[in-house]
Amino acid sequence: MKTIPYPSTNEIAMGLSRLRKFTLVAASAEGKTELTAFDRALLRAGVGNMNLLKVSSILPPEVEFMSELLIEPGSLLPIAYSSLTCYQPGKLIAASVGVGIFVKEHYGVIMEFSGFCSKKEAEETVSEMVKEAFEVRGLPLNQTLIKGVEHKVKKIGCVFAAVPLWY
Amino acid sequence: MKTIPYPSTNEIAMGLSRLRKFTLVAASAEGKTELTAFDRALLRAGVGNMNLLKVSSILPPEVEFMSELLIEPGSLLPIAYSSLTCYQPGKLIAASVGVGIFVKEHYGVIMEFSGFCSKKEAEETVSEMVKEAFEVRGLPLNQTLIKGVEHKVKKIGCVFAAVPLWY
Amino acid sequence: MKTIPYPSTNEIAMGLSRLRKFTLVAASAEGKTELTAFDRALLRAGVGNMNLLKVSSILPPEVEFMSELLIEPGSLLPIAYSSLTCYQPGKLIAASVGVGIFVKEHYGVIMEFSGFCSKKEAEETVSEMVKEAFEVRGLPLNQTLIKGVEHKVKKIGCVFAAVPLWY
Repeated sequence: MKTIPYPSTNEIAMGLSRLRKFTLVAASAEGKTELTAFDRALLRAGVGNMNLLKVSSILPPEVEFMSELLIEPGSLLPIAYSSLTCYQPGKLIAASVGVGIFVKEHYGVIMEFSGFCSKKEAEETVSEMVKEAFEVRGLPLNQTLIKGVEHKVKKIGCVFAAVPLWY
Repeated sequence: MKTIPYPSTNEIAMGLSRLRKFTLVAASAEGKTELTAFDRALLRAGVGNMNLLKVSSILPPEVEFMSELLIEPGSLLPIAYSSLTCYQPGKLIAASVGVGIFVKEHYGVIMEFSGFCSKKEAEETVSEMVKEAFEVRGLPLNQTLIKGVEHKVKKIGCVFAAVPLWY
Repeated sequence: MKTIPYPSTNEIAMGLSRLRKFTLVAASAEGKTELTAFDRALLRAGVGNMNLLKVSSILPPEVEFMSELLIEPGSLLPIAYSSLTCYQPGKLIAASVGVGIFVKEHYGVIMEFSGFCSKKEAEETVSEMVKEAFEVRGLPLNQTLIKGVEHKVKKIGCVFAAVPLWY
């Protein structure tokens, strides 16, 4: 496959830009409904007041890891995430995201997972998924960032793990 | 959490735009497949000729309620929605959206719901969800806009309720 | 949490309003998990290194059909797609997309389908869906582009068919 160059100065000036920053977040919460449990988990993860725009699993080249998400409420936020909501009291649920990096100049891979397991198991699963994604691309995997969360359901519980991407 | 004002005059002068308007829509339809039932419900709701870009549940600050959606066919339309498709003849299905507003200058919350119930029940559920979302944020709820629809399935039925956001 | 200005909503909107090209892709793959099977199918379809932004089923007016997707890895790529992942060895799965066109100046319709069937059946289903979508709009259907794929599951198999839209 041939590729053509990224939009350059011209197009950026015309209003196109690209993602520059990312972080990893994970949180859990209870709610009265599935959507409000999800909403609370988002709030705890720091993305509850943004308009999430779900994207798939590629980390753009040249993006920089930030320890914190710093964007304005109400913004449209591109984000890769996995979440699981469960209605069975006592059940353990977990979610995790992983980011695999070759070098900063190259795109990376984001993998996300949620299931009926512990945080440790979810993180191991995501770690394996990142490895497989790099193997299939024939890319060396130099660094993996992982974040996970687990939650024992009380009534309606939600786990959420995500990689927000911003500017 | 401190916030700073949205980018305004400066960025607009640079040729940028942002979400300015919203409305609430709801409709139902039958189709020969799940996707065409969904397509017809979208058409009846007035968003069937746009490219829907599903977003999560935040109403940006400063957006204005419009009674009608006025955008060009083929546009990408950010939209929060819930829909349900059902193959069981005779079943009653419903969908509803709600928008909770504190003041226009502050972000609001959008909640959406669909289920096997009446329009009235769907709207009550959404109303409760909006309340819960405001409670968890510690925000006063000054106004709630609600829209819903119900449908008795003939063959393959779909209900759809949404909050489109545009410019 | 401090926030910083966020011009990107606007830039995303600007960028998204300029879709100019489209193509049809379809591919299948096996993986160790559902997400990595999906990831491999995406790679084979030529969209595995982009950040997919799922959109609904409208082809904007004036877009041009391209035989190949030519964009840079890591880009946000608006895409309409259907995919199916299956864990049952021996099962035949298929996915297909169709694009219905009246004239280039008018918007078109994208339909997508996946199921437990052959490629031929998936393509016929999508063809019927495009016809139904045009009928309900009262539009003459002058051209239908169809692409499909089928796959016999070994362990965890995924089929994927899509219409990427770009600039």
